[in-house]
Amino acid sequence: MERKSFADMDCSVAQCLEVIGEWWTMLIVRDAFLGVTRFEDFQRRLGISRNILQQRLTKLTDQGVLVRVPYSEHPPRDDYRLSAKGRDLWPILTTMRQWGDWYAARSGPPIVLEHLSCGEETVAQLTCEKCGGHLHPQDCRVTPNRARIAPPSSLLANR
Amino acid sequence: MERKSFADMDCSVAQCLEVIGEWWTMLIVRDAFLGVTRFEDFQRRLGISRNILQQRLTKLTDQGVLVRVPYSEHPPRDDYRLSAKGRDLWPILTTMRQWGDWYAARSGPPIVLEHLSCGEETVAQLTCEKCGGHLHPQDCRVTPNRARIAPPSSLLANR
Repeated sequence: MERKSFADMDCSVAQCLEVIGEWWTMLIVRDAFLGVTRFEDFQRRLGISRNILQQRLTKLTDQGVLVRVPYSEHPPRDDYRLSAKGRDLWPILTTMRQWGDWYAARSGPPIVLEHLSCGEETVAQLTCEKCGGHLHPQDCRVTPNRARIAPPSSLLANR
Repeated sequence: MERKSFADMDCSVAQCLEVIGEWWTMLIVRDAFLGVTRFEDFQRRLGISRNILQQRLTKLTDQGVLVRVPYSEHPPRDDYRLSAKGRDLWPILTTMRQWGDWYAARSGPPIVLEHLSCGEETVAQLTCEKCGGHLHPQDCRVTPNRARIAPPSSLLANR
């Protein structure tokens, strides 16, 4: 499989994929949201090789998505916990889960989301921060950011 | 790099990754939302090998994310267009873009989103379909779906 870094692409989707686009990474993030913090627990739940898991945890730590918090000095052992940057992946995780629920959950969604503020089972919706209305692609337009220091070169060239 | 299929995992995030988790795939979907439909245009914009691009387009078509629509009979040529299933990836694409904007767009977001209904530049927010309030992970709980035919086995075992 061809691989290259997306780091030099002038696109925020590519930048996001540069961090979370590796096979397994979002399942590690998912488990972190479910409260998993320890290497052995990630390894057991994911059934992933220790080598690959260590690579992914190291990358997520280097990228600031996870932070290491010591829980033992002898032997030295760390928890892996989500940083604020990691917790901000929750909208991506949630929209991915819902798409999987819609299109691949043959016997129904494995889990349901409860909104504690209102006490209801819910589905997350994308809404406009300005008017509060639902956001749909057919009712949105993307344009180059004119307020930007360096304008994007080619991203919209095909529109 | 270790690879395996996520198809047998009882988790909708894994099911979603099974479709869109390949390197390059979400950038193809991004370009499809920007109006790109033709092999040559995807290839030129992404700078991806023809071989890998064809694999990804074939998988996305097999999975029902893209549909092929003939635009020429001699020679036979197809457009690749988003299906409803493909358009439903927009919330994932949008939340990925925003995370990249927050954490990796050093000179500002490359593009901005305009909500045509209200005419404002906007940011997508995740809200509760029941009460309309913002959804944050610290104000949500996930629980096994009791209404499900086959209850999830181990997904929440570590909570």
